[in-house]
Amino acid sequence: MPKILTAALCAALLSVVALGSASANEGMWTFDNFPSAEVKSSLGVDIDPQWLARVRGAAVRLSTGCSASVVSPDGLVFSNAHCVRECAQQLSPPKMDYVANGFSAARRADEGLCPGMQAEILTAISDVTPTVQAATAEKTGQAFIKARDAAIAVIEQHACAGREAKFRCQVISLYDGGRYSLYTYRKYSDVRLVMVPEAQTAFFGGDPDNFNFPRYDLDFSFVRLYENGKAVATPDHLHWSFAAPKPGEPTFVAGNPGSTDRLLTAEQLESRRDLALPWTLLLFSEVRGRLIRFSEESPEHARMADFLLFALENSFKAFYGQEKALVNPALIAAKRRADQELRARIAADPKLADTIGDPWSDIAKIQTDYAALMMPYGFEETRAGLGSHLFGYARALVRAAAERAKPNSERLPEYTDSRLPLLEKDVLDPAPVYPELEQLTLEFWLSKLREYLTADAPATRTFLGQDSPQTLSAALAKSRLGDAAYRKQLWDGGPSAVKASNDPMIRFVLATDEASRAVRKEYEQRVSGPTDRASEAIAKARFTVYGTSTYPDATFSLRISFGKVDGWTDNGVAVQPFTYFSGLWKRATGQSPFDLASRWQHAEDRVNPATVFDFTTTNDIIGGNSGSPVIDAQGNVIGAAFDSNIYGLGGDFGYDARLNRTVAVSTAAISEALRHVYDQPALLQELSAR
Amino acid sequence: MPKILTAALCAALLSVVALGSASANEGMWTFDNFPSAEVKSSLGVDIDPQWLARVRGAAVRLSTGCSASVVSPDGLVFSNAHCVRECAQQLSPPKMDYVANGFSAARRADEGLCPGMQAEILTAISDVTPTVQAATAEKTGQAFIKARDAAIAVIEQHACAGREAKFRCQVISLYDGGRYSLYTYRKYSDVRLVMVPEAQTAFFGGDPDNFNFPRYDLDFSFVRLYENGKAVATPDHLHWSFAAPKPGEPTFVAGNPGSTDRLLTAEQLESRRDLALPWTLLLFSEVRGRLIRFSEESPEHARMADFLLFALENSFKAFYGQEKALVNPALIAAKRRADQELRARIAADPKLADTIGDPWSDIAKIQTDYAALMMPYGFEETRAGLGSHLFGYARALVRAAAERAKPNSERLPEYTDSRLPLLEKDVLDPAPVYPELEQLTLEFWLSKLREYLTADAPATRTFLGQDSPQTLSAALAKSRLGDAAYRKQLWDGGPSAVKASNDPMIRFVLATDEASRAVRKEYEQRVSGPTDRASEAIAKARFTVYGTSTYPDATFSLRISFGKVDGWTDNGVAVQPFTYFSGLWKRATGQSPFDLASRWQHAEDRVNPATVFDFTTTNDIIGGNSGSPVIDAQGNVIGAAFDSNIYGLGGDFGYDARLNRTVAVSTAAISEALRHVYDQPALLQELSAR
Repeated sequence: MPKILTAALCAALLSVVALGSASANEGMWTFDNFPSAEVKSSLGVDIDPQWLARVRGAAVRLSTGCSASVVSPDGLVFSNAHCVRECAQQLSPPKMDYVANGFSAARRADEGLCPGMQAEILTAISDVTPTVQAATAEKTGQAFIKARDAAIAVIEQHACAGREAKFRCQVISLYDGGRYSLYTYRKYSDVRLVMVPEAQTAFFGGDPDNFNFPRYDLDFSFVRLYENGKAVATPDHLHWSFAAPKPGEPTFVAGNPGSTDRLLTAEQLESRRDLALPWTLLLFSEVRGRLIRFSEESPEHARMADFLLFALENSFKAFYGQEKALVNPALIAAKRRADQELRARIAADPKLADTIGDPWSDIAKIQTDYAALMMPYGFEETRAGLGSHLFGYARALVRAAAERAKPNSERLPEYTDSRLPLLEKDVLDPAPVYPELEQLTLEFWLSKLREYLTADAPATRTFLGQDSPQTLSAALAKSRLGDAAYRKQLWDGGPSAVKASNDPMIRFVLATDEASRAVRKEYEQRVSGPTDRASEAIAKARFTVYGTSTYPDATFSLRISFGKVDGWTDNGVAVQPFTYFSGLWKRATGQSPFDLASRWQHAEDRVNPATVFDFTTTNDIIGGNSGSPVIDAQGNVIGAAFDSNIYGLGGDFGYDARLNRTVAVSTAAISEALRHVYDQPALLQELSAR
Repeated sequence: MPKILTAALCAALLSVVALGSASANEGMWTFDNFPSAEVKSSLGVDIDPQWLARVRGAAVRLSTGCSASVVSPDGLVFSNAHCVRECAQQLSPPKMDYVANGFSAARRADEGLCPGMQAEILTAISDVTPTVQAATAEKTGQAFIKARDAAIAVIEQHACAGREAKFRCQVISLYDGGRYSLYTYRKYSDVRLVMVPEAQTAFFGGDPDNFNFPRYDLDFSFVRLYENGKAVATPDHLHWSFAAPKPGEPTFVAGNPGSTDRLLTAEQLESRRDLALPWTLLLFSEVRGRLIRFSEESPEHARMADFLLFALENSFKAFYGQEKALVNPALIAAKRRADQELRARIAADPKLADTIGDPWSDIAKIQTDYAALMMPYGFEETRAGLGSHLFGYARALVRAAAERAKPNSERLPEYTDSRLPLLEKDVLDPAPVYPELEQLTLEFWLSKLREYLTADAPATRTFLGQDSPQTLSAALAKSRLGDAAYRKQLWDGGPSAVKASNDPMIRFVLATDEASRAVRKEYEQRVSGPTDRASEAIAKARFTVYGTSTYPDATFSLRISFGKVDGWTDNGVAVQPFTYFSGLWKRATGQSPFDLASRWQHAEDRVNPATVFDFTTTNDIIGGNSGSPVIDAQGNVIGAAFDSNIYGLGGDFGYDARLNRTVAVSTAAISEALRHVYDQPALLQELSAR
């Protein structure tokens, strides 16, 4: 079993550093550039535009960071349990834990609103590259960022004008700025939890089994789209397959891979390896330790910290795998050779060379500024609060008040008209806030800010003053921003209400926001502006030399990948692509996280032991794809992707068809469980509707 | 102020990768190879053999990992507060916290035994290289390790035969096995705490100020040597200076630097950078998080975890600095050039080449086995228990019972006759054990063992069985081994008593020790044996090509470094070598760790504000040197080294006279505090005795 990062992983990655063309089954393709011919030749399947349109029309992006699919005519949406884990935690009434015990709405009226969750279905794609690139021509540094963001704000605003209530328009940057596409989404901002199994069942094996296979996780959930208080009619849904997947069967995964880095230069990968990832891993490790101890203090603390700890451990393992891949010197050496090959081909064409310039050297030089600014920018801006909800609310309220007063195209991009509705929903949706957990998070953030920026740094004085992280976090955790009504009062009240607030967190953000904005400006001027400019030039070079028959890095926008049900050979051992119900009871030890939920302890005789439980496919996915439907050649949904195998951790930098595998839970297993373990005839009936 | 690792640090390190000869003030010299001529030429001071003998006779090694010096005729020993921090914690009676409040024995009878602490004064050095190397000739792998350890056991046993009660004989490996020296120590196993100031005062600025300067730490302590219940007469003591150090004044530091890596090959440094340090930092980060939260749960928990957390944070910062130094690619590139220069010179001499072979390639090849075995060896053997005292006791009892039954030269080296007395003291000295803290530590260890070795690894099954880390650690924390009387019963009872014990921790170690010994054997066979063999060959090559006028890597054995009182220039800013009492109140904010102990809050008018508080010198030191006397040219003690500046963190790999600085607390400041703040006329009188 592929339990650790082995030499095979390293060898694998060497062959897959992104070059001009993709290997078999590689790629997270946009729907307007689907490689039909390649699919036909490698899988023998004809995928026509109607098939693609139908899948696109049922593929869902969840604003909380997952993927999903519509699977009934009544707005029923199929995703992973871990995609609604935070929602289940937030909906749990006092002394009830829907994460631990699962949740199932007996009637429609019991389906509960998931705070901050918006479902989005892509309806149109159009190319806006010329408009964006014209706006940024000749611009550099922060001016480049501002011009680009302004152009995007205008495009998004105009495209959705008059239909903002039901649509979201978003410009997606693809190929590192080589192309900009306008994606129009039908949006549903009232998404309610229908059913999720116990965390023990959905995440059996817990962190130790995460990213491993064989696997026994029933990682599914259902939510439902609502509008005007009623379930949305969704005639364009995928059909639910009750049959098990078959070995070698072609599979398609439609979803929203979050982020890959297959187009970065060698120097950017080095910064990732030496700066960004080590720092992230250390931060995550320490706060993980604090949260584990916090969780052990009481069942109530465990419930409060559940989602944060789950998400943290999942990310930690993924980043750890990335770092392991990057410290293999051959990976970056292969990337450097690929960079050099492209540079040589450009140099051979003087006219092209004149157009492109030397963006690789530009990026290499920027790394010094990146090293200097990474931590200040992180602690003061992108990672400020380090997950504190109170801080997040306060920053959104303070900044929205300031930004909304400006013309749309002059705002920070997260506050433009096209983005405000989702932000407003996020700020105003009622969601529980736990002061004890807030204090822990804030204290951790402030103490690391002081540690890494040093006690004598001006930023430390700005954020901490004469306080200690302990005293300041205790004061800030007393904020009233956990109260949604108070947030609404400040949101509606605008700048004057915000400035008049005596809430400690609002006062804190007001006092520190200038410093945060200043470091952001400096970062854009010295790092992200010049980087994005250079990346755009490299993308142009790549298009010119290799053509456009490739896929862009993942950007949490809709993609489709193709592959087939298949295991792999791990250090000479064949790993079968299936697990079966029967294996679950064999693996259970009775101790967490290898213990069974009570309803499963005696279910062995009720379910068919030969049912395919989880399965693996060759599809190319990455985090963000969680909940994506796994679709057969006929367009039926046969599973939900919930993980990759251990080799997928290096998938950030490349894909190897021999080893990278998607891990999915089968609809066959879910159907069997709904029927014999969860007693859900109504859901089964709804899934059978055509 | 040098608060972060800057480009200057990186630049500095490039010039100091250990080559054949040392730069000015570089070196941790053995007392039998003191560079008198170099000292004369660089400092203008004549150091004669009498001076060296007198300093050596007063220099103390504390078995708990620090250095110190005898400073009165009545066995009074001067060291750092942080060197007795664990002792103060252990001596604290219920509801009393000697770490937080400080401790001062009103009478001799109140001086309290520091558990496990032995003071050792070096009395003789002799060369035993031929004997050891003859025993290992032609041997490889684990056979090499066994032959070497057996030879050492015999040498140590014979050298101290008949005088074991008062002497300790230890063979010290120098120059990575290029030389073996027999060090004979007069030992004192009854060391009692006399005085230590409050942690707030000794460690003002805490972790944020650690490794920084300007600094305001009164990091001193006094312990006393006892024998047969009486203070030991120590006519050979250093004279205490009441005068402040002067700019440019020559300084000597005599102490026990713990470990440096200036002679490692480039490939070994790469393994350090990519494997050992990242893993260590991640482990330390997470357990740090758990301990911080544990400490915040109650004042009692804070007291229990105090020393562990302090030591952990200190090590974390040091390792973090090492990693920062190693990710600078120029450092390892410089090391590789140095390796290649030496290899070229060997290759040019066919006869020498034939003798030396190619140990660099051997070491490069070993790194694959190191990568595979580092974690199993760490979790199951060297880091087993990850600091649990109960585990440590159990392993010592189980193994001592088994090993003592074997002939001396066939035992694991930590159980040979020469080492048993200190081990026995360590096991039998009464010291408090905190079950809550034990459980935390054990749970952490077991959960990380499972995480990094994977849930399905045979080792995980051996150590964890069907348990979870939570359940098993809870069971093990119920061990009776916290009771010194029970430990004595098992120690005296030998194998039969150990085997008959129903103590859960003893049973656990009995059940897992075979696995631990097996992985150790494999590691010695595939990693440490071949490495030590190759390192010995490189050392021989280095001696042949560069001569012996250099110093060996640090090995926690007595060394002396020379230098002078001096500041440095930090990114163009001159840092003065002194702080003064007056600065303490300026830096205090009232919030931990920048708050003053109550007796200091109103002491500003009682002490001379112009007294030199802390100071910096150019001496080359490393961890283990803590507590080392800083000595003037006349042989008087003028301070105690307690830290290095931030550049010293890269000192593991090299020394740069422009930037590396020792940080010491002045005897002038201590004298002033004893007189006007701590009211200690008796101590002052004792320090004045000649």
